[in-house]
Amino acid sequence: MENNKKVIECVPNFSEGRDRAVMEAILEPFRTTPEVKLLDYSNDEDHNRMVVTLVGEPQAVKTAVIAAAKIAVAKIDLNKHEGQHPRMGAVDVIPFIPIRNVSLEEAVELSKEVGKVIGEEVGVPVFLYEKSATTPDRENLAKIRKGEFEGMAEKIKDPAWRPDFGPAERHATAGTVAVGARMPLVAYNVNLNTSDLSIADAIAKKVRFIGGGLRFCKAMGVELTDRHITQVSMNLTDYTKTSVYRAHELIRIEARRYGVEIVGAEIVGLVPLAALVDTAEYYLGLENFSIDQVLETRMME
Amino acid sequence: MENNKKVIECVPNFSEGRDRAVMEAILEPFRTTPEVKLLDYSNDEDHNRMVVTLVGEPQAVKTAVIAAAKIAVAKIDLNKHEGQHPRMGAVDVIPFIPIRNVSLEEAVELSKEVGKVIGEEVGVPVFLYEKSATTPDRENLAKIRKGEFEGMAEKIKDPAWRPDFGPAERHATAGTVAVGARMPLVAYNVNLNTSDLSIADAIAKKVRFIGGGLRFCKAMGVELTDRHITQVSMNLTDYTKTSVYRAHELIRIEARRYGVEIVGAEIVGLVPLAALVDTAEYYLGLENFSIDQVLETRMME
Repeated sequence: MENNKKVIECVPNFSEGRDRAVMEAILEPFRTTPEVKLLDYSNDEDHNRMVVTLVGEPQAVKTAVIAAAKIAVAKIDLNKHEGQHPRMGAVDVIPFIPIRNVSLEEAVELSKEVGKVIGEEVGVPVFLYEKSATTPDRENLAKIRKGEFEGMAEKIKDPAWRPDFGPAERHATAGTVAVGARMPLVAYNVNLNTSDLSIADAIAKKVRFIGGGLRFCKAMGVELTDRHITQVSMNLTDYTKTSVYRAHELIRIEARRYGVEIVGAEIVGLVPLAALVDTAEYYLGLENFSIDQVLETRMME
Repeated sequence: MENNKKVIECVPNFSEGRDRAVMEAILEPFRTTPEVKLLDYSNDEDHNRMVVTLVGEPQAVKTAVIAAAKIAVAKIDLNKHEGQHPRMGAVDVIPFIPIRNVSLEEAVELSKEVGKVIGEEVGVPVFLYEKSATTPDRENLAKIRKGEFEGMAEKIKDPAWRPDFGPAERHATAGTVAVGARMPLVAYNVNLNTSDLSIADAIAKKVRFIGGGLRFCKAMGVELTDRHITQVSMNLTDYTKTSVYRAHELIRIEARRYGVEIVGAEIVGLVPLAALVDTAEYYLGLENFSIDQVLETRMME
């Protein structure tokens, strides 16, 4: 009896972090749609933004997020919105993240289905981004969002910024939205027994993609001043291809050059079970292990 | 938003492995009781026995297992039962296993509640066993069951075998039942690059409890003849105290004496997520990691 249920995660960002009634209205579909589970939400008053995390069966998540987007579009007027976080729409960005029995390609497909509905039925222009992007220029959210709500009125008229779905004109109050798919991110930090930030920085540069290191690794050196140590702080943007253990062991190898050792590590925030399974498989040399052998996976709805 | 839900596992064994209608009747409460999930069941015609695995909220599991026990008592007549597996009752043994947010003590308490109902309301004598045992003699199921259904008619009259709950007399058709609590078992095997079984045996003897090794470790040497290697095959009976990684590394240390190396490992069957988390924490040196950071734990019902 394996659990073959498909699970996708969605982390929509809404441009409202102050008005409790509006936030609650937006959350409603996530609380009530069958086969959708609201995992977390956090609002920031300075950012005037709410970030929601939900998981569930892909079509159910699609239904819930479209319902929430409609509510946000109806209740949020970007002309009156101010906050520290850049934003271009009432629902600003909708990333889909494959979690279980879902491929990245399926997540891309789902993002396009959602984009099509928001563009054509809700009437808000949609830019597909990250893995769903239709041009390389649109992979990076910051590039799409540059100019924000205010600048989008003109930017969208440029043929290079014609939206992927919906009207080629900024929605008067709800702006535009980026919809896309990406792998889950693993925030992984490795501590070094040196207080010399230049060493942590040098190691970070060697393990990260742009320095010639691991393809799905972003990294930088960080000082943990209280503890008089430093840290290589990483984002692993595809743990299925750049494993946690590989980043860890590569840092160990580079650290030797400086006579430095790893003295600890941390995972910040959530981590997919598969990343832990991968770690155990590597260090124990497990053969033929399946994630379905983890008892808790049998208990997931 | 942590998931604080209590989850207990129960693996009741029923003395019916041939009659599909009886087996289905017994399974019914596990399929229909809210907050109970039937994970697996397997019947063996030679053993004439069915082993069921269910998980769920402790009180719901209690309700379901009592309902199933009543059905088994009504439908199974041990006087007509024959099979290769030793048995003393229609429902032969009911172990409770803490999985999540449940202590072993709570599992013991639950086993006693279930035992009391089966003894006093269903009328089948109950022996508490394993961690629920009221005397050291009753910790071992095989000792309780010795003599089986047939021998129990006399055995139960011995004051040393007075049941913990219910009548001091064998139930005429349903015999007796053992109810108890134990930790989940992790079946963990480590492969060695030697075909010499005496080496695997010697290592097994050093790492296991009875040889002076790890307290919650049973071990023996096994030949993998197809692969021309050997294996230390272990049962870790409390992975929270005898960690998978500790058993693994201790075998590595002992193997050195023979110039032998570990060339792989396997986990047989199910493993609690906490055992994998423990493994990753050790090898990566994770600080302040919580099992609640595993995304999938948020999705459990």
